[in-house]
Amino acid sequence: MPQIPPAQIGAAFDEIATPALVIDLAAFERNLDTMADQARRLGVRLRPHGKTHKSPLIAANQIARGAVGICCQKVSEAEIFVAAGIADVLISNEVVGVAKVQRVASLARHAKIGVCADNAEAVQALAAAADKAGTVIEVLVEIDVGAGRCGVVPGPPAVALAQEIARHRSLRFAGLQSYYGTAQHRRSPQERCDAIARAADLTTETVHLLEEAGLPCRTIAGAGTGTYPLEAKSGVWNEIQPGSYIFMDADYAKNEPSPEAPAFEHALFVIATVMSLSADRAIVDAGHKALSNDSGFPAVFGRPEVPYSRPSDEHGTLSILGSSWRPNLGEKVLLIPGHCDPTVNLYDWYVGIRNLGSADAHVEALWPVAARGAVA
Amino acid sequence: MPQIPPAQIGAAFDEIATPALVIDLAAFERNLDTMADQARRLGVRLRPHGKTHKSPLIAANQIARGAVGICCQKVSEAEIFVAAGIADVLISNEVVGVAKVQRVASLARHAKIGVCADNAEAVQALAAAADKAGTVIEVLVEIDVGAGRCGVVPGPPAVALAQEIARHRSLRFAGLQSYYGTAQHRRSPQERCDAIARAADLTTETVHLLEEAGLPCRTIAGAGTGTYPLEAKSGVWNEIQPGSYIFMDADYAKNEPSPEAPAFEHALFVIATVMSLSADRAIVDAGHKALSNDSGFPAVFGRPEVPYSRPSDEHGTLSILGSSWRPNLGEKVLLIPGHCDPTVNLYDWYVGIRNLGSADAHVEALWPVAARGAVA
Repeated sequence: MPQIPPAQIGAAFDEIATPALVIDLAAFERNLDTMADQARRLGVRLRPHGKTHKSPLIAANQIARGAVGICCQKVSEAEIFVAAGIADVLISNEVVGVAKVQRVASLARHAKIGVCADNAEAVQALAAAADKAGTVIEVLVEIDVGAGRCGVVPGPPAVALAQEIARHRSLRFAGLQSYYGTAQHRRSPQERCDAIARAADLTTETVHLLEEAGLPCRTIAGAGTGTYPLEAKSGVWNEIQPGSYIFMDADYAKNEPSPEAPAFEHALFVIATVMSLSADRAIVDAGHKALSNDSGFPAVFGRPEVPYSRPSDEHGTLSILGSSWRPNLGEKVLLIPGHCDPTVNLYDWYVGIRNLGSADAHVEALWPVAARGAVA
Repeated sequence: MPQIPPAQIGAAFDEIATPALVIDLAAFERNLDTMADQARRLGVRLRPHGKTHKSPLIAANQIARGAVGICCQKVSEAEIFVAAGIADVLISNEVVGVAKVQRVASLARHAKIGVCADNAEAVQALAAAADKAGTVIEVLVEIDVGAGRCGVVPGPPAVALAQEIARHRSLRFAGLQSYYGTAQHRRSPQERCDAIARAADLTTETVHLLEEAGLPCRTIAGAGTGTYPLEAKSGVWNEIQPGSYIFMDADYAKNEPSPEAPAFEHALFVIATVMSLSADRAIVDAGHKALSNDSGFPAVFGRPEVPYSRPSDEHGTLSILGSSWRPNLGEKVLLIPGHCDPTVNLYDWYVGIRNLGSADAHVEALWPVAARGAVA
């Protein structure tokens, strides 16, 4: 069962039961606008990543601002987005297993569905399922341009796989998925630039070989929040897939800003409450079950001198000795999650706050994290 | 909304949609029996921790084997356990905030409810709420015996707080919560023994001061899976609160075993599927959203030579160069989570498997993780 919402619409900020996942609606809306504007200026299609927000309502907001559709990572996520009316969904990931490819093939009756592939056997399974369902699935060949995760080797192996896709009437070869995930978090602009330049060379070479083989790429997709201006300006990619820009997180805040990119604002927070006080520390009610600490601990909003540390399942420690701040028991604290995507996945509800930071801060929206837990 | 279950009852092991959270029912049942037997032999009350499993059904199994009730960490968890019929619930944690203490006071009408306190102001809020609700809340004074998290300083400060509790007709001073969380994971038996010996001294001193003040402790509670024989044999504690013993995890497996403790078995796994293959690696479909990696990465069951590494949100890397194992695409892998509690909190369903590891492995049970996401 979903948890009951942590507040009612109209409630004051202080009435929210903590820990809770909150959106600063004004900052969030500015982030949406900024990226939509960026895609227009850079001349690339925007297909934001739904793995960040897991919310069809947010996806619809992105599409209303010009996005061509959305990405997700899992079949179960795609099902939720399609059921909510999103008409164009790319699973930017491999799908393996008889039952899962059947689900993809069935879904393709109700929306335009794309998936990635890096293996001929997987392509054949997709084709068989789509044949049986009487549908057509768009397939991108994923190439490994440096991340060392999924993807075929760029160049001839990618061409061979595209030829395998093109052989099947129930599949449509759509182009390349060329995403360099780990490059998003390289701290200096130069490191990110070097990484994407190398990825661009590998992608370009593959695109040319595909053209020579009579397999032009309609879509060359990739890029995240940390590098998208580089992919867009390279002239190679024509579709970008940023996700985190809507919320930002403490890990992205550690990137040195790129001169070519506008700043996105922190718009996602976990509100926590001070539940225990000692001379040197305030214990808050948000630990591993309220914050995904895989990419570093959260930052305390507005109090950079107060580190969050030593999380356990339900607690976190704020060390207050280096600060003049002396919180009261019950005081609320805004934490910027270390990593937004897996933190969102811990909650059933977004609590949308209007006028965050002012005396009139109040709950304007409760949005379900509809694909929370959609991991399969 | 909860996710659809990853399999139907009766399905074969290979039909489970991955990633999924599975219980080896036979190992789980042996773990339940072993701890129930331990508590009887050691002469202490067993109040297992429900924060591990978040399942009233598992709690009922524990109580049927002799547990006196259960613990949990959050008011929202307590509400779910009480609504399911669990009659004796200790929130082994501080509860702060007007709305939350009201919820505790209301809950005390339907079950025996205990909470912990480490602050006089919080005690007064609990008393006011219970007064208003016309209920009685049991309160344990939490003392900090080394964990450096919540809890008052042992000795006179604990006595002062107990006196504050005893002053209120709507509260009942029940004793001490003396839990040394970080000691559970000290790797050598000697380190754990030393830590609990020190905690025992601090607890004993506090118990004597309370007796002198006319405040005997009916309950002296604490102890987890890593140290419970030490607390039980100390003669100080009379109620133990282990949680992880039902499942065990890769982090607990790194503890050198204590000669005085029986072994518990790994009974909780995440099933993952190999979704991409390269010469040096198999990529599985379970990353941060399927496994809480806060206490180390998962271990591959039966293949200790294959490390899991480099998780991203939806992927993990199995390095296969050091193994003779060459998995097939689509092959299923059992992962032992690094940390069971926050991993359980990622899933809506336990898939209970009978005959795991045999050709007849099949789904015998689907149990909701009823308090999944109950963080408030």
